Amino acid sequence: MLAREVLEELVRVLGRENVLTEQEDLLTYAYDATAAMKHHKPDVVVAPLSTEQVADVVKIALRYHVPIYTRGSGTNLSGGTIPVEGGMVLSMLHLNKILEVDQDNLTATVQPGVIIQALNDEAAKHGLLYPPDPGTVTTATMGGSVSECSGGLRGLKYGVTKHYIMGLQMVLANGEVTRWGGKTVKNVTGYDLVALFTGAEGTLGIITEIIVKLIPAPEARKSMLAVFDDVDKAGRAIAAIIRNKVIPATLEILDNVTIQTVENFVHAGLPMDAEAVLLCEVDGYKEVVQREAVLVERIMKEEGAVQLKIAKDDKERDLLWLARRSALPALAQKRPTTVLEDATVPRSKIPDMLKAIRRIATKYNLQIATFGHAGDGNLHPTIITDERDAEEMKRVHLAVDEIFETALALGGTLSGEHGIGIAKMKYLNREFGEAGVAALKRIKEALDPNYLLNPGKIVRRD
Amino acid sequence: MLAREVLEELVRVLGRENVLTEQEDLLTYAYDATAAMKHHKPDVVVAPLSTEQVADVVKIALRYHVPIYTRGSGTNLSGGTIPVEGGMVLSMLHLNKILEVDQDNLTATVQPGVIIQALNDEAAKHGLLYPPDPGTVTTATMGGSVSECSGGLRGLKYGVTKHYIMGLQMVLANGEVTRWGGKTVKNVTGYDLVALFTGAEGTLGIITEIIVKLIPAPEARKSMLAVFDDVDKAGRAIAAIIRNKVIPATLEILDNVTIQTVENFVHAGLPMDAEAVLLCEVDGYKEVVQREAVLVERIMKEEGAVQLKIAKDDKERDLLWLARRSALPALAQKRPTTVLEDATVPRSKIPDMLKAIRRIATKYNLQIATFGHAGDGNLHPTIITDERDAEEMKRVHLAVDEIFETALALGGTLSGEHGIGIAKMKYLNREFGEAGVAALKRIKEALDPNYLLNPGKIVRRD
Repeated sequence: MLAREVLEELVRVLGRENVLTEQEDLLTYAYDATAAMKHHKPDVVVAPLSTEQVADVVKIALRYHVPIYTRGSGTNLSGGTIPVEGGMVLSMLHLNKILEVDQDNLTATVQPGVIIQALNDEAAKHGLLYPPDPGTVTTATMGGSVSECSGGLRGLKYGVTKHYIMGLQMVLANGEVTRWGGKTVKNVTGYDLVALFTGAEGTLGIITEIIVKLIPAPEARKSMLAVFDDVDKAGRAIAAIIRNKVIPATLEILDNVTIQTVENFVHAGLPMDAEAVLLCEVDGYKEVVQREAVLVERIMKEEGAVQLKIAKDDKERDLLWLARRSALPALAQKRPTTVLEDATVPRSKIPDMLKAIRRIATKYNLQIATFGHAGDGNLHPTIITDERDAEEMKRVHLAVDEIFETALALGGTLSGEHGIGIAKMKYLNREFGEAGVAALKRIKEALDPNYLLNPGKIVRRD
Repeated sequence: MLAREVLEELVRVLGRENVLTEQEDLLTYAYDATAAMKHHKPDVVVAPLSTEQVADVVKIALRYHVPIYTRGSGTNLSGGTIPVEGGMVLSMLHLNKILEVDQDNLTATVQPGVIIQALNDEAAKHGLLYPPDPGTVTTATMGGSVSECSGGLRGLKYGVTKHYIMGLQMVLANGEVTRWGGKTVKNVTGYDLVALFTGAEGTLGIITEIIVKLIPAPEARKSMLAVFDDVDKAGRAIAAIIRNKVIPATLEILDNVTIQTVENFVHAGLPMDAEAVLLCEVDGYKEVVQREAVLVERIMKEEGAVQLKIAKDDKERDLLWLARRSALPALAQKRPTTVLEDATVPRSKIPDMLKAIRRIATKYNLQIATFGHAGDGNLHPTIITDERDAEEMKRVHLAVDEIFETALALGGTLSGEHGIGIAKMKYLNREFGEAGVAALKRIKEALDPNYLLNPGKIVRRD
């Protein structure tokens, strides 16, 4: 419970309508999109209208030792916005303006509450594109996606969120308003705090303004579906495409379990008996798209694709991608709980990782569907389960442990795009060792010595 | 002077041949490529053979409070490797192996002493390219270029060093060996220390291994030279190219002073009376190069280019780029001291910045030649002077101050690619404010509380 005077100070700064304390309001901020996580209600939810108000709120929080959890749409997948220690959720709801699209410098300046798709729609009016493309593009906010360094379907060719963040306005844990980076393509002034704040999950500062890089929108694209009767062959096809110097915009895989579930859900014409399908899109100038599509087609055949379907028009293309985008919702319908993991390995290890996931599913007698961004090594093994079944959940946790052990053993990482949050903190030592985790903690404590900002995430106080 | 026992311990770890203390050895490490800087001799120069030896050296340095300055080829341009507080220069001379080129994952793994061009030569054997392209590509080391986050001629299309660094092995200031990042395209595990260490000028840790991203080498390229009788027109041409959605690999400018000096030096056929020339190269698939070259040509004409010269073959192309690459050596021949600055603004502000530089040259009665990476907003105003002339140097310093004031006022930054080092520390407050500089200091002190690593650079102990 917060002291009455804290609430009074917050109301004085923000107005009564932007300080929520009703139980039904607090309940909706007790969880995020991560499955099987304990809920934690905040004591208050505040929604500032300006950077200055954010700074004032931080100063109040600092004075009364109230934890702050900055929140966009709460679509994150590692528990990153759950208010585990109580305190204040700071909602970016009202800071939702696209401040500028600058065509000469190929940048946009946005507030953190802007939905990613809204930026894309605005950029498209100028023939420009903001490439990061997480599955939640129509609901997630820019602030959240910068804080989690979202990935998505275009990572292979275009990179991820961090490759597009040029400048940030940050309110630090001491309430100071600072600016980092800007609109210059090159910038080596001081340490790269723009990069450090990106992906820091709101634990090092609060983003109040973002300058992103835009690129000219590709003029053409072509999508195709390749069907394989063997996962290894699909893996070899991926490697062969890259070795032939083609970098598709998107190169996704769906395994058999996912194919069957998706097909029953959206009827996109996926072959129910395929062991794996690859979904590939090349984009760019129309001549390039033509050349690359022909080359990819030839490689898929050479590597043993039993069927190949090239989208003839936008309608066919959209249906293919609807199939891919439906993977998670389709799987989520099968049983009450969907544990969506984020195993990431070097691209060349995709066949090994797929085999390991099947072995782990058998070993723990679990249903695991796997789909994901094969071209960039980022797979989403998804355990279809029921969190009310304690015995099964025990096996789920053991399977997840083993998936991460395997990813690390293959030269991978704990998280490609979902973040550490609270879900993966316990594994951090395995990736970085004690010396590495100690270094992360020193960074945290340098910028937030009181663990005021999103406490209990990434690294924890001793 | 170092205590005798420090030297004995260093010799025990490294062998006598890798611990240099002769005055003539020390003298060559007292400066770097930065003009008009006070020299400082180190007390000892050591050259480790392995990561373990680096860690052992750091532990000795920690025990005896000896500063460490990690050094590659010493080509840096902001005093970043000068041993200002005495102590130990750690030379990466022996750690010069390319450990791997991984074609499937499009990565290379190198030791820090590898020359950038050597990596490029190795990558080229596989049809791959490491895009960062600083002027010193044939002499600078990978470790140095990561530490300074080198830029160069391809920043506009391909970005700079930080966009290609995927993993680092780092010896921290406490002597611990840590690994960050790896070969995965996506990685959001913990804070992005790969990005933080990149561009940190050796002040936060010592790089002992680097994993870089490679890209397929473009199959074709076309270069052209456009001549303008007015700098503004050249600036407008740059903006028009970008607005037409063409992102050239390289888009460089030379002003009249530079043109005349270069032409006298290399006889490349530059027009002596031109106010500015733009040098542009487009690259990629041959069809793309064809389309983009035609478009750029048309835009240059529309924006008032009085002459246009398209390189017909590699020989003509090489001559054009020799002209550009000769800018600095040609200017350096004119007078004893060449103060090469690094003023960086958003691309759209290039005409304003060029005008301001001319105004400043007149105001302080100095000869300033300007050339640089116009396409990415990174200009190199170069003051041709003589450091023995104290009165003129006073005006030089005032001019440099005013150049940076102007860059910041135009939304630019203190350094696009040369770093802060010691040369630009005094300006940091103007870009970040006190709160920002304090945050940088807290980062420094989190990872190097004793200011052991490259002390006196970027931020200084209180």
